[in-house]
Amino acid sequence: MHLSSSRTHIVWDRDIPPVLRVSPGQELTVEVADASGGQLTPDSTADDVIAMDFANVNPVSGPIAVEGAEPGDILVVDILDIDVDAWGWTANIPNFGLLADEFPDAHLRISAIANGTVELLPGLSFPCVPMVGTIGVAPPEAGQASVLVPTRWGGNMDIRHIGGGAKLMLPVGVTGALLSLGDTHAAMGDGEVCGTGIETGSTVTMRVDLIKGRELKFPIVETDARAARAGNAVAATGIGPDLMQATKDAASGLVDEIVRRTGLAPIDAYLLASVAADLKISEVVDAPNWVVSMHIERDLLV
Amino acid sequence: MHLSSSRTHIVWDRDIPPVLRVSPGQELTVEVADASGGQLTPDSTADDVIAMDFANVNPVSGPIAVEGAEPGDILVVDILDIDVDAWGWTANIPNFGLLADEFPDAHLRISAIANGTVELLPGLSFPCVPMVGTIGVAPPEAGQASVLVPTRWGGNMDIRHIGGGAKLMLPVGVTGALLSLGDTHAAMGDGEVCGTGIETGSTVTMRVDLIKGRELKFPIVETDARAARAGNAVAATGIGPDLMQATKDAASGLVDEIVRRTGLAPIDAYLLASVAADLKISEVVDAPNWVVSMHIERDLLV
Repeated sequence: MHLSSSRTHIVWDRDIPPVLRVSPGQELTVEVADASGGQLTPDSTADDVIAMDFANVNPVSGPIAVEGAEPGDILVVDILDIDVDAWGWTANIPNFGLLADEFPDAHLRISAIANGTVELLPGLSFPCVPMVGTIGVAPPEAGQASVLVPTRWGGNMDIRHIGGGAKLMLPVGVTGALLSLGDTHAAMGDGEVCGTGIETGSTVTMRVDLIKGRELKFPIVETDARAARAGNAVAATGIGPDLMQATKDAASGLVDEIVRRTGLAPIDAYLLASVAADLKISEVVDAPNWVVSMHIERDLLV
Repeated sequence: MHLSSSRTHIVWDRDIPPVLRVSPGQELTVEVADASGGQLTPDSTADDVIAMDFANVNPVSGPIAVEGAEPGDILVVDILDIDVDAWGWTANIPNFGLLADEFPDAHLRISAIANGTVELLPGLSFPCVPMVGTIGVAPPEAGQASVLVPTRWGGNMDIRHIGGGAKLMLPVGVTGALLSLGDTHAAMGDGEVCGTGIETGSTVTMRVDLIKGRELKFPIVETDARAARAGNAVAATGIGPDLMQATKDAASGLVDEIVRRTGLAPIDAYLLASVAADLKISEVVDAPNWVVSMHIERDLLV
């Protein structure tokens, strides 16, 4: 099964008809456009950043209907591989980003991506660690919602750990789940502070599956050493407009997940999270919702 | 030079006379009591947690006066080694911790620490990565301030990366700096969600030095692979009662530090932070102030 990057949408809406139907357990490849939707090229300048049509940024490929998915299930997405383009862009977009007041002007850098390395500036290179910035399912509420704002249904979460080898669990909100993804990065830091990573198109190979009849409050990510930098991990998330509440939700979600996997008493899982798990701000620029994730080494939970 | 753990204080106050005087460049060892100040033992139970005298927790050893230190300087502390005790405690303290509503009851676990390993529960072990939870200097304002609340002068920051091999830079607020430290942990997760790590006493070997005439808004940490898990790093911090403002301060501080070390244009440093640096919630339980830190691989900045 293959989905072209020409099959995109730019709002979350449960009424957008699916462009592909897959069965649980099925593997598929999805072409993903870069976050500018092709508006930027390797020859672009800061002027092109200002001239961008922001009504059409962050296109996501989909929706993909999963047979048998119903509200109250969990959609499991295994990211098997992300094959990124040979270049990427990183921009400072006026009035966007964590330090927008400090950096008001448009700015653009084009990176070369080759041999597993990203070169952001001449002589300044670091590993290419591809990840999916936006991946989510249709919300159950009627109407259009911004594709730029993450919610408990996923979307523009910008969790650096959703890379090759990662397993993402999303709550299902509507019949068929209606999965879409886009906004791939060749590299990104936790928080994506200037508002962009190494933005690039890609082909994502993945497998979708279902866990029937298990509610999930917020997405959970299981990642391997490639994406985690510091080894394999399980991460729970909190997503919303208040960083403290998102932090509490991520911690509470990880406690629940530790209990589920180990059978520990919840209070011991809480202590274990305190001494061995890490709170990360995954996304703090996609207003009005922020993403906090809490990560624990997966090998501790067996 | 050696400082005994009997020379402690339990509030920040610029008027507490120093118990030791050192010169810049001098190495010293400091005995640190565990955060209970000896109130808990390996035989303690949850009842002892409730019975603790909280007016006397988190004692810090000091103050240590550094010759020549003046407001507007930076105090540099190299943590050379942390030799922890053979046991530690981890408690859930009622009405304390991120999920206090969810976990209202007192709970205590005693860990054995041996051969570089911490055993929190039978069969549940992980690496011992000692760190200093509380380290700071006297604030310039008159009066007593809680030793439990971190500020821009440091204190109870609970940054997991302040371990052996780390270099900590603190702004100097008063003549002599008046450095104190305590609250060592054999292991802790970013955020210390239940409010305690593997709490243990220790002997800290360190060297103090000065950078004259350089203002620092918030502390900066430079850490090595032992403490960082994912390699060496430089981290800037933001400390205050609003997580979003602390996040902005940490990002802004890291941009400044990247510029200082590399000569990059600030806007490029901002982009680099976005694609290669990580936002971590280091402390979110020492009300009313939280600590956010932003980490970048040190090798990227040479």
